[in-house]
Amino acid sequence: MSQYRTFTAADAVEYARQFGGVDNPDSLVDSLEVGDGNLNLVFKIFDTQGVSRIIVKQALPYVRCVGESWPLTLDRARLEAETLIEHGKFCPEHTVKILHYDADLAVMVMEDLSDHAIWRGELVKGKNYPLAATQLGGYLAQTLFHTSDFFQHPYQKKKDVIRFTNPELCDITEELFFNEPYEQHDRNAYPRELERLAEALRDDEELKVAVAGLKHRFFSNAEALLHGDIHSGSIFVAEGRLKVIDAEFGFYGPIGFDIGTAIGNLLISYCAAPGLLVPREAADAREQRLNDVRDTWNSFAEGFLALAAEKSTDRALATPGYAREFLGKVWSDTIGYCGTELIRRTVGMSQVADIKNIDDRAMQVECVRQAITLGRSLILLANHVPDIDALIMRIRQNG
Amino acid sequence: MSQYRTFTAADAVEYARQFGGVDNPDSLVDSLEVGDGNLNLVFKIFDTQGVSRIIVKQALPYVRCVGESWPLTLDRARLEAETLIEHGKFCPEHTVKILHYDADLAVMVMEDLSDHAIWRGELVKGKNYPLAATQLGGYLAQTLFHTSDFFQHPYQKKKDVIRFTNPELCDITEELFFNEPYEQHDRNAYPRELERLAEALRDDEELKVAVAGLKHRFFSNAEALLHGDIHSGSIFVAEGRLKVIDAEFGFYGPIGFDIGTAIGNLLISYCAAPGLLVPREAADAREQRLNDVRDTWNSFAEGFLALAAEKSTDRALATPGYAREFLGKVWSDTIGYCGTELIRRTVGMSQVADIKNIDDRAMQVECVRQAITLGRSLILLANHVPDIDALIMRIRQNG
Repeated sequence: MSQYRTFTAADAVEYARQFGGVDNPDSLVDSLEVGDGNLNLVFKIFDTQGVSRIIVKQALPYVRCVGESWPLTLDRARLEAETLIEHGKFCPEHTVKILHYDADLAVMVMEDLSDHAIWRGELVKGKNYPLAATQLGGYLAQTLFHTSDFFQHPYQKKKDVIRFTNPELCDITEELFFNEPYEQHDRNAYPRELERLAEALRDDEELKVAVAGLKHRFFSNAEALLHGDIHSGSIFVAEGRLKVIDAEFGFYGPIGFDIGTAIGNLLISYCAAPGLLVPREAADAREQRLNDVRDTWNSFAEGFLALAAEKSTDRALATPGYAREFLGKVWSDTIGYCGTELIRRTVGMSQVADIKNIDDRAMQVECVRQAITLGRSLILLANHVPDIDALIMRIRQNG
Repeated sequence: MSQYRTFTAADAVEYARQFGGVDNPDSLVDSLEVGDGNLNLVFKIFDTQGVSRIIVKQALPYVRCVGESWPLTLDRARLEAETLIEHGKFCPEHTVKILHYDADLAVMVMEDLSDHAIWRGELVKGKNYPLAATQLGGYLAQTLFHTSDFFQHPYQKKKDVIRFTNPELCDITEELFFNEPYEQHDRNAYPRELERLAEALRDDEELKVAVAGLKHRFFSNAEALLHGDIHSGSIFVAEGRLKVIDAEFGFYGPIGFDIGTAIGNLLISYCAAPGLLVPREAADAREQRLNDVRDTWNSFAEGFLALAAEKSTDRALATPGYAREFLGKVWSDTIGYCGTELIRRTVGMSQVADIKNIDDRAMQVECVRQAITLGRSLILLANHVPDIDALIMRIRQNG
């Protein structure tokens, strides 16, 4: 049994030699720590040619961007590895491959995706990947269907609910998504120019009732094994390819949370485009993002329905028409969680490059205002948007 | 550590002496096995005066009424004891007191309730307990609120979801409630005269879609620690008193399931009354049952809302107005699960004395027909009954 120690660059190379499954382990000679996230060490492991071959990722026992004052469970490495392994069973094409993990060291070894780029960075640059949204929807359909009660045996599903119980990471979401943006809180990070708009959120009882419902379903509705944090920064893209990474928030939750989070980040990009790109490019990018939103939902929904028709194992849930009815609830949840994602990324602590990279302050404030306004509308309208076309129309109306 | 063995009458006495907490243990001298249920041994332990003082209940490793061919986990004794202990923390007045339990022996020692009677038996006799329904609603409010996300810390709640994971007993409900009555199945036990009505259930796709939704929420919505089988046979009553027993189906599930099950059994009694009582008594009994249904719901809902206003610990769920909105969903679930309870008790395997005790065959068939028809209506109408008055009106319309 191994004991936790923080890896040095040399440790990471040695570990990759041992567990990376490369033909000639001694060819791995160097490493570089590239973790730009908030929580972990990430080492690229290079061969003698200077080519990155393997990734070694280790969880730190605290929140990296805050420091040792915010401790955080090392069990998240196991949760991340096991979520990705589980998702990889059902959607290997779009899930990063885990080669090895060790729960005690809180470390995992995974395939290198250096020939891909993080989707958020590409969106910030205005680069379009026309297949990505459809692929993302396909990943969501495969992973969420196959881990749901439609497909899993009830005994196995109950075991997996236990295995993927993730109190500490869920706590972060419970606070940052559903509480802090609707309160006065030190960690909120909206521009001071939008104080009145933020105050209006805090004073909007109808909004807060709707957010409470979303939080309650996040707490209680164990519908499928979620990625739990599927934003554009957790997705690698390349021409015609897409890989999901970073599943440490994985747990059994409401399906609409994953889809809403994914779509919410596309809409952040939509709102930010005028601040990042020249007007004509921005207009194109906004149309592309609306297409992406449509493609993500349609690909998910069509995929899920096709899987439900073909592969449902539960006799009652297999009833013709039930999957479609269930997707109606998933749709409402999707819109609601999408709204909360827009707000937590703008009012709340977890700011994103799409907004941060806007140089013009006034423009930045306007983009944030649009995102908050859209988020609020979506939360309030979640039960009243009949379909994806109506959603797209609502987004356009928001300006 | 103890090892499982089936208790003899003498073992039960000895065990009660050891763990019954009576002042003079040697006064316990005799026992009688009185288990009339389907699953367990139940010993009454008598003192030298012939007074029953303590109950010793032991789970058998199979379904008693079927035999050793249907094995069943002994862990249900732990689940039952821990559910009752948990419910007893929040509603000691109406939860049977567990004095001791041993998971390995699958045995528990509990207070004797010989001065009470099983409610179902009293209902069959036409005896009314005017406070019982209000007390039952109070028990449901206390136990379901205090084990929910409104009150429990998220870490504790997640631990309890694990602790109360109950795959084998849930499997029984999943099959008997939500599958078998809507299929051709050997275990179904409806009168042959109602073959066409049973067939109509099997052919009703709209009904089966609604039942699939109820089953799906039973699978996935971990809203509170349910009793899991709260019918009138799991409830002891006496003048002005009520005690809930038999919680081996306890698990984290949708709140409406417990309330719907409870109300469903009152409606079985409503449907059966004309077969059990002379016309004038039957008419009175039916009015009393409708009052009971109203009192159960109102007492639960008012209790839950009052607790939510006073004692919610979750900042988002404490938002004024949210508990009431949530109860709207619980209400729809309640009606739906109530409908499935009516059908599983008439079409399905789990027949009840209310129906079995009707001597006149033609009358019995008519009572069953009414219960099935009412159950079907409630499942289909679950989202369209605005309040308790509308529900009572619907029940009257059913005849």
